[in-house]
Amino acid sequence: MSKLKTYILLGLLLATSSCVFSQSHPKLILTQKGVTEIRAHLSELPMLQSSLQKSIDFVDAEMEKGIDVPVPKDMAGGYTHNRHKKNYLLMQKAGVLFQITQEEKYAVYVRDMLMEYAKMYPTLGLHPANRSYAPGKIFWQNLNDANWLVYTSQAYDCVYDWLSSKERKKLEKNLFRPFADHLSVDSPQFYNRVHNHSTWGNAAVGMIGFVMNDQELIDRAFYGLKSDNIKADQKDNDGGLIKMQGDGKAGFFAQLDHLFSPDGYYTEGPYYQRYAMYPFVMFAEAIENCKPEVKIFEYRDGLLIKAVKTLLNLTDVNGLFFPINDAQKGMSYLSRELVSSVDIIYHFGGQDSGLLSVAEKQGQVMLDDTGLSVAMAIKEGKQTAYQKKSANYKDGASGTEGALGILRAGEGDKEVCLVMKNTSQGMGHGHFDKLSFSLYDDMGEVLPDYGCARYVNIEQKFGGGYLHENNTWAKQTVAHNTLVVDRISHFGGSTDTGNEFHSDPYFFDASHENIQIISAKENNAYPGVEMHRTLALITDKRFEKPLVLDVFRVNSEVENQYELPYHFLGQVLSTNYKYDVLETLTKMGESNGYQHLRLEAKGQSKSNNAKLSWFVNDRFYSLTTYVNPEDELLFVRSGATDPNYNLRREPAFVIQKNKQKNAVFVSVVEAHGNYDRVTEFANNAFSSISKVNLLVNTDEYTAVSFQDIKENKWMLILANKDARKENKHQLKVNGLNYEWTGAYHFISAQ
Amino acid sequence: MSKLKTYILLGLLLATSSCVFSQSHPKLILTQKGVTEIRAHLSELPMLQSSLQKSIDFVDAEMEKGIDVPVPKDMAGGYTHNRHKKNYLLMQKAGVLFQITQEEKYAVYVRDMLMEYAKMYPTLGLHPANRSYAPGKIFWQNLNDANWLVYTSQAYDCVYDWLSSKERKKLEKNLFRPFADHLSVDSPQFYNRVHNHSTWGNAAVGMIGFVMNDQELIDRAFYGLKSDNIKADQKDNDGGLIKMQGDGKAGFFAQLDHLFSPDGYYTEGPYYQRYAMYPFVMFAEAIENCKPEVKIFEYRDGLLIKAVKTLLNLTDVNGLFFPINDAQKGMSYLSRELVSSVDIIYHFGGQDSGLLSVAEKQGQVMLDDTGLSVAMAIKEGKQTAYQKKSANYKDGASGTEGALGILRAGEGDKEVCLVMKNTSQGMGHGHFDKLSFSLYDDMGEVLPDYGCARYVNIEQKFGGGYLHENNTWAKQTVAHNTLVVDRISHFGGSTDTGNEFHSDPYFFDASHENIQIISAKENNAYPGVEMHRTLALITDKRFEKPLVLDVFRVNSEVENQYELPYHFLGQVLSTNYKYDVLETLTKMGESNGYQHLRLEAKGQSKSNNAKLSWFVNDRFYSLTTYVNPEDELLFVRSGATDPNYNLRREPAFVIQKNKQKNAVFVSVVEAHGNYDRVTEFANNAFSSISKVNLLVNTDEYTAVSFQDIKENKWMLILANKDARKENKHQLKVNGLNYEWTGAYHFISAQ
Repeated sequence: MSKLKTYILLGLLLATSSCVFSQSHPKLILTQKGVTEIRAHLSELPMLQSSLQKSIDFVDAEMEKGIDVPVPKDMAGGYTHNRHKKNYLLMQKAGVLFQITQEEKYAVYVRDMLMEYAKMYPTLGLHPANRSYAPGKIFWQNLNDANWLVYTSQAYDCVYDWLSSKERKKLEKNLFRPFADHLSVDSPQFYNRVHNHSTWGNAAVGMIGFVMNDQELIDRAFYGLKSDNIKADQKDNDGGLIKMQGDGKAGFFAQLDHLFSPDGYYTEGPYYQRYAMYPFVMFAEAIENCKPEVKIFEYRDGLLIKAVKTLLNLTDVNGLFFPINDAQKGMSYLSRELVSSVDIIYHFGGQDSGLLSVAEKQGQVMLDDTGLSVAMAIKEGKQTAYQKKSANYKDGASGTEGALGILRAGEGDKEVCLVMKNTSQGMGHGHFDKLSFSLYDDMGEVLPDYGCARYVNIEQKFGGGYLHENNTWAKQTVAHNTLVVDRISHFGGSTDTGNEFHSDPYFFDASHENIQIISAKENNAYPGVEMHRTLALITDKRFEKPLVLDVFRVNSEVENQYELPYHFLGQVLSTNYKYDVLETLTKMGESNGYQHLRLEAKGQSKSNNAKLSWFVNDRFYSLTTYVNPEDELLFVRSGATDPNYNLRREPAFVIQKNKQKNAVFVSVVEAHGNYDRVTEFANNAFSSISKVNLLVNTDEYTAVSFQDIKENKWMLILANKDARKENKHQLKVNGLNYEWTGAYHFISAQ
Repeated sequence: MSKLKTYILLGLLLATSSCVFSQSHPKLILTQKGVTEIRAHLSELPMLQSSLQKSIDFVDAEMEKGIDVPVPKDMAGGYTHNRHKKNYLLMQKAGVLFQITQEEKYAVYVRDMLMEYAKMYPTLGLHPANRSYAPGKIFWQNLNDANWLVYTSQAYDCVYDWLSSKERKKLEKNLFRPFADHLSVDSPQFYNRVHNHSTWGNAAVGMIGFVMNDQELIDRAFYGLKSDNIKADQKDNDGGLIKMQGDGKAGFFAQLDHLFSPDGYYTEGPYYQRYAMYPFVMFAEAIENCKPEVKIFEYRDGLLIKAVKTLLNLTDVNGLFFPINDAQKGMSYLSRELVSSVDIIYHFGGQDSGLLSVAEKQGQVMLDDTGLSVAMAIKEGKQTAYQKKSANYKDGASGTEGALGILRAGEGDKEVCLVMKNTSQGMGHGHFDKLSFSLYDDMGEVLPDYGCARYVNIEQKFGGGYLHENNTWAKQTVAHNTLVVDRISHFGGSTDTGNEFHSDPYFFDASHENIQIISAKENNAYPGVEMHRTLALITDKRFEKPLVLDVFRVNSEVENQYELPYHFLGQVLSTNYKYDVLETLTKMGESNGYQHLRLEAKGQSKSNNAKLSWFVNDRFYSLTTYVNPEDELLFVRSGATDPNYNLRREPAFVIQKNKQKNAVFVSVVEAHGNYDRVTEFANNAFSSISKVNLLVNTDEYTAVSFQDIKENKWMLILANKDARKENKHQLKVNGLNYEWTGAYHFISAQ
């Protein structure tokens, strides 16, 4: 810290004299004004100090080892890949350090490394891996090359004025201009799409354009290439169509217009939204700094601000993103993309004090004007708790392609959160999981979404890329908590077909304390099969935590097999029915994900209720479901047909109804009790639900009830064909007449 | 906290006046002097305050609900069991609260509850569950009844002087005296053993004897019953012989003489040692308070002090006890038994400042003289780090029945700890795991011991008792990291046979920084088979963390199948050999634990080395082993023949050598690298070991070597027949002559 102290002192000295800068750079992310203020306030701002110190530690350690710019060779996770990734992070940080500490060694380091790249770049052909639909030169895919330029343009901006004009000319001629051209004019299939890949490409080209003051590049970034010759059926590595969205439009504004819904939801899901946010917010900051007249943060009704706030709400109690679609678990709002997003949106988006508490958890700030704002506000104690909320985020550019529903209830250790996916397909990274849901409590996952089958950047697992099992398991319907008909995945597992449809939100109501409810329909996943699921979070002091009530209706003209899996974690504790475990385990099928499942046990309930209690992380959970005695109750586990041990072994409870046209699954899920391994006391280890019942099921109405062990009774009636809030309904249930207004009627125990 | 503040003020007032007590109680655990001093110092001692507040919160909340003393009915985990357990904890705390706060309501509560017990007790027969070899009256087993009396005698002591003599007479006649008699004279098979059950019995009888001033009970506690008529082959519920140890002696001193080794190791293992410590240290404190002339803490060379320190050293980085033998994982030094142990040993055992840092982690102290000592010392900042160390704890009353070896190396995130079990059987709770080892790092388990198959106090799992699978799986050899011959467990799985033998420590040397090493032999587990295992922790800056080198020799006159399992956790990452996964999974055998395993995959190495890398908790681990091309390399997983889902599904890697007389398994285990799910960077994800070799194996010498990817080479030579430190050896290996002194010779890379 002694070095840091010196910088702080220097900064104070400089800040008290008048501004010493007169040249035009930095101007992209860090600004001259920002540098002056950071140096002036550094001594008062611990968060800024620690972020600076972290950068100093990282860069100084690497500077000692010397510069290494290897000839590109490896796939993701391999040496040259990791090295070039580290290099751009190092250059970006070293550039910033040069500005803030004014130590020339950092500028020298950036220059020398850039010169190495400038020497090598003209000699490079396409990356030798030859695995991408759009290969880069430094990395196996242009996407990573675009990353390189987004970071490196910041570094170049920071040393621009310090370099000689001869050096700048050399770098721009041999490196930056051809680099930008390779990303764009040479790779239209990468650059001229509406897609997160192109967003990176647009931002990269635009940011270097700003630094170089190159209007042509800036226009290319804003509006794309004028012509591209992309074929209508051309696809990327993930099977996504190149030209799917945007009516042939391209460029940064096309991304803003088409990739987000009006609610700021990104159709690929939060994991990719997180990844995509960085070029969006960084390029937006650059635009705001270099072309404030664009008013980029006001664009589309403040879209970028909404997008960041939506993304923060798509996290569990630990700040981990809900892993819907292709998403590696564990990614959270602690990621550097979210540090940038939170700081930038705080600074340019109205100083929302809730964002400051997220920034505090992140424990670091950007070393720029926005990070300074955040660090100062935290120092002044302006932070308030970030309130996550129930919400129904519309999907699709116009907000008409389904929605992602979040219900949250309970506080502290009683927190329960339910995520229901009634969206569109989500393009190439989308999963076939219409009407699926996942459940979280104050510890994390309860009924999980598997996420993707991938170990990002772990070279031993297929170079860190998507595994074969991502398609054959993780995307398939049975890998999710939703209905499988005749053991076929939604849309027959075709992304192209899936892309044509979206689920239909039926109603959403989070306005009551005792019940929050979401309902949606899906009529396209299986031709001739109508699915309608309603999920409610019910809060009642008679239960330790909010309950989940799940009513899944399915109608068909013909008889089908219906299977509804509930994926859980941990240990089966008990059931209220007898089951037989199988001595010999085999895969359950040949396709649609069933080839990765083994049937472990099978049973039937003699009563109309089946109950499963399980145990994980020293917590108890129970699911009670209304069944017919002929329904089969299965325990299955993933891990079959897994020649490289790519899959986790995780259990699921499957309710199987055979030869049915119309059916209703009614279940209550409880999180309850806990176990203390030190005192060995088990608290509230038993389910409180004594009965779940289906009372009525017609085309017009479905009525279900459940009761607790003290015989308190709750009832929910759904109007299946009319979700209008103002309409009146009446229904006779068990001889009693019920009248209500709106799509549903909930009667709580007295 | 407002109440607490009032007590503090009152305490200060009283403390400044002279001592107001003149009667003889409390004297057992809390003393009159202790009460005065606690009241005087409470205001200065935050730890004492928070411990007091915790007791107040617990007792006050329960007092509001009223007293419930139900007729005994349920097994462990059931309502009446939990209620009576809560009652004795409540009475003990309420008694202490009466003394410290001098609020009479607590005395009233204790008295009223005791009166309920005094009313019910004479009406009770044996507990109706009828499942124990020694049934209690309040609980299903006398062990729990003894617990009740150990706690309740403390409560009685605290209200003794406050009660009328008539009340005391009634309680002693109807409750305490018959209670003590039921535990002892009526249950000799429980009371007159050398066993943790009897320790509880002795302490219970002795503690109530002290309170009642009943010399007969005190003698009975110290020296047992004079006659008991126990049959020679009589056994307890765990299959342990009643009269196994102690040459017919009984009582508390017999427990001290026979249950611990001279090193303070308790033959059942740390989980039961933790449980047993409470009556040992509490009764010892009572003896020290009531009969200081006994000098109980000096008995047997300070045995009780050693025992607590040994127990603290038998924990991993999180303070969790190594789960050898029957042990539920998760039990730690945070347990109330260890709070008592640490406080008492600190106070009476020489004020070891290292104990204070453990007490700080425990976050609470006893509300007695010893807790006061600890809280005051912590307040004064006397605490120092508790240094865990490498040690070889001798087993057996005389220290001649094997040993438990612990090797520790590395600090902070480089910490590695190895536990090798070369002990005696450990009686009825012992596992058949001679020469087995388990491995820990700074996160916890790496190569785990399964522990017991039991969910203590979770009623749904067999009333919280030992599961059938505890015998059929958890105790069996294949459930451990040690050698299985011909798929039969050690001693044929017979506890009686196991009890006759112990492994033979061969040498132990933890005196060098670069290598710590332990070696032991076992010649009785399989008749005609000699097993000799040597395990070393090797520290070298060329490796990220200390390595484990494992050399397992086995000799036999006849050909056998040898299987050496390494149980691991998490995901297979990669192997350096090809394996085939099985499409159909079946149990591997009918008995000896193999009925609970399924073979998942099988392969052979074309080279002489097989490497497995795996991934868990975002860490990387690798095992590299010297094999012959005909050796079979298996992936297996637990969970077969498990009709009630009682077992966890966990993988193991098994090295199988077929039709061999003599064989050597040589392996290196590395913990290396980590993965960050937020940055998605994988650090040091690859094994550094390029080769493991067996160079020499004769009756006299075994030489092994390993090398890293930079071709640095290490070698270890073992003298197999002479472990004496002073003896000279020489051996030619690969044409080079090596000379050394002592049992082993380690040559580190230059």
